[in-house]
Amino acid sequence: MQTEEIGSEMQLSTGIFSCLCGWFKALIGKYKDKVLELAKYTKKIGKDDPRRVIHSLKVGLALTFVSLFYYTRPLYDGFGISAMWAVLTVVVVFEFSVGATLSKSLNRGFATFLAGALGVGAQHVASFSGEKGEPFLLGTFVFLLAAASAFSRFFPRIKARYDYGVLIFILTFSLVSVSGYHVEKILKLANQRLSTILIGGATCIVISIFICPVWAGEDLHNLVAHNLEKLGSFLEGFGDEYFRISESGEIQVVSKEDKSFLQAYKSVLNSKTTEESLANFASWEPRHGRFGFRHPWKHYLTIATLIRQSAYRVEALNNYINTNQSQAQSEFRRKIQDPCTKMSSESGKALKALASAIKEMNQPSLASPFLANSKTAMNDLRTALQGALSDATDLLEIIPDATVA
Amino acid sequence: MQTEEIGSEMQLSTGIFSCLCGWFKALIGKYKDKVLELAKYTKKIGKDDPRRVIHSLKVGLALTFVSLFYYTRPLYDGFGISAMWAVLTVVVVFEFSVGATLSKSLNRGFATFLAGALGVGAQHVASFSGEKGEPFLLGTFVFLLAAASAFSRFFPRIKARYDYGVLIFILTFSLVSVSGYHVEKILKLANQRLSTILIGGATCIVISIFICPVWAGEDLHNLVAHNLEKLGSFLEGFGDEYFRISESGEIQVVSKEDKSFLQAYKSVLNSKTTEESLANFASWEPRHGRFGFRHPWKHYLTIATLIRQSAYRVEALNNYINTNQSQAQSEFRRKIQDPCTKMSSESGKALKALASAIKEMNQPSLASPFLANSKTAMNDLRTALQGALSDATDLLEIIPDATVA
Repeated sequence: MQTEEIGSEMQLSTGIFSCLCGWFKALIGKYKDKVLELAKYTKKIGKDDPRRVIHSLKVGLALTFVSLFYYTRPLYDGFGISAMWAVLTVVVVFEFSVGATLSKSLNRGFATFLAGALGVGAQHVASFSGEKGEPFLLGTFVFLLAAASAFSRFFPRIKARYDYGVLIFILTFSLVSVSGYHVEKILKLANQRLSTILIGGATCIVISIFICPVWAGEDLHNLVAHNLEKLGSFLEGFGDEYFRISESGEIQVVSKEDKSFLQAYKSVLNSKTTEESLANFASWEPRHGRFGFRHPWKHYLTIATLIRQSAYRVEALNNYINTNQSQAQSEFRRKIQDPCTKMSSESGKALKALASAIKEMNQPSLASPFLANSKTAMNDLRTALQGALSDATDLLEIIPDATVA
Repeated sequence: MQTEEIGSEMQLSTGIFSCLCGWFKALIGKYKDKVLELAKYTKKIGKDDPRRVIHSLKVGLALTFVSLFYYTRPLYDGFGISAMWAVLTVVVVFEFSVGATLSKSLNRGFATFLAGALGVGAQHVASFSGEKGEPFLLGTFVFLLAAASAFSRFFPRIKARYDYGVLIFILTFSLVSVSGYHVEKILKLANQRLSTILIGGATCIVISIFICPVWAGEDLHNLVAHNLEKLGSFLEGFGDEYFRISESGEIQVVSKEDKSFLQAYKSVLNSKTTEESLANFASWEPRHGRFGFRHPWKHYLTIATLIRQSAYRVEALNNYINTNQSQAQSEFRRKIQDPCTKMSSESGKALKALASAIKEMNQPSLASPFLANSKTAMNDLRTALQGALSDATDLLEIIPDATVA
């Protein structure tokens, strides 16, 4: 009996052991997979835009610099605990593009200055109202200004450009006005705080401008040109794709990569937010490269809106590729195939020429022959359409796209 | 001579005076206009969404409460300068919706705790390496963690949900690790800081949940239903609008307000960013009203995407109203007018029924008869189209919209 029990116990423990072993191995395997996956994903994100890696190193550099400044005793003793505002400023202010960094630094600097001055004033006024009246008066000031600032953030213009400034304004105002210090002490504190914020902000600005700068303006410029190019690629390929499908009666199996140009335009549909924030940041940037100080950034938004509207139409065209599979009418289609394909591809080329003109900042003269070709093809198409009007209505849509661009 | 001079001088000064007067009046007039304009605009923003006014008052309340807490000497002496972190937390954390406030508070709380602990550890490790090695080691820690955190913010998922947490993490880590204090003092400081952040965060959360709460989830719910409704209104009116134009040969002058239903869908085109952030905030919110704790917020995004795709097609349809003015074909058009108008208006009604089903969280059974009607109309249209295929291709587009919804 006893030996049996021992035997079964041993069996049990071996079972548990092997079970645990297996579970452990599975766990390691699972996590190994996850870690590998994460590593791959990280690499991909870095590869998609190598400036991201550089940006991370820049942030590390700025923060280390300011931290060691904070750490160094002699300097620290001069600034007191205010030195930490330099660290805080760097963390909060350092953004990916120069424009965003500048926008935040300037907002922070001006708002701190303004709110500090107002706060000192508010405290001074409140101090006249006796020991009992002071907290009430101060509370009222803070309440009114906080409510007004919070409300002002709903104004679209303020939201877009000065949101961060308003935040810092109300923060500094309440900290200063309620601090309960005497004016002399506040002035000393304000001096320390402003200079540490200045140090933090200046560190960010210098590093972001002089070490591999990322200009929001250049990004916007390239984004707009690239979006136009995507539409061009689609139109260039559209004719072939559409008529190939309808002729053979079914979709030919083409590898996905070959068709990526037909899907690329989809990112244009939702690019509005990105474009607007880039244009906003760009307006904070100083003169750089080919872009002057008052470069007309708003015009990019106008072009971007037109491009987006064209993209909506391209989306409608793309729908035809996906849904209109093999509907008889082959005789009619054969008639219009040539002018249609030509019109589409020529207007696609025109868009691409315009895109490269934007990119190189040239006169878009290269696009004219394509536009002319496209117009000839359009007239041919009209002739072909005389009498029997058909599927072509959606193709006529291409014309506005080309003209719009 | 002298009298003449005096006379001309007087003339001159009278001239200058009247000139100045006029300029002054103009200045006042100009500013009065501007101030009036601003007041009107402010009123409009408040009227558009009265919750904005309430939100501003809530921010004022929270900030006044925390400020007076900071101001009160006995409490202040207990917490020291750390009390200012409560003010800081309120300003930075209080957002419009409950979800956003919760997301920021929790991010801030957890990040501070985690980074504080890590910072203490880092400093402890660095203290073993002697007086000369310490700053190097600390600098390396800060550099590595800052770079890693900055890079992690490029991960879309982290960016969406934990962006603020990462910011606070690296901020707290550098402040703590570089502070140069001994562990005991840090622990006391950390204790103070965590409790003040807790006080600030709790104030925000309590006020935002219990005083006229703004739920991001409810906003998302209503936004999606409202967007669907807008598409419905467009389709309902589209048939009439389109055929009225083509019949009379020119656009009839209708007041803009009557036509607003034809333009309302345009806001749907660019709603993606808003929807995504609302869905993110909604997932932070506790159970409220008709929405359970794990309400499937992601499904709203799926529906929203489908609605947006339909809006792209509606945009293409709308284009026909604006460009296709009076192109002969009136005989053909008269033939298809009835089924077309019917199909469009019935599918519009179906969309509206679906929208109200979403709003009321019912089974969308009310939409079925409209859908059936719309399908009948579609078949009628097909019959009418037999033989001569024409402009109707773009109207056939409506079908996917109805089916999609």
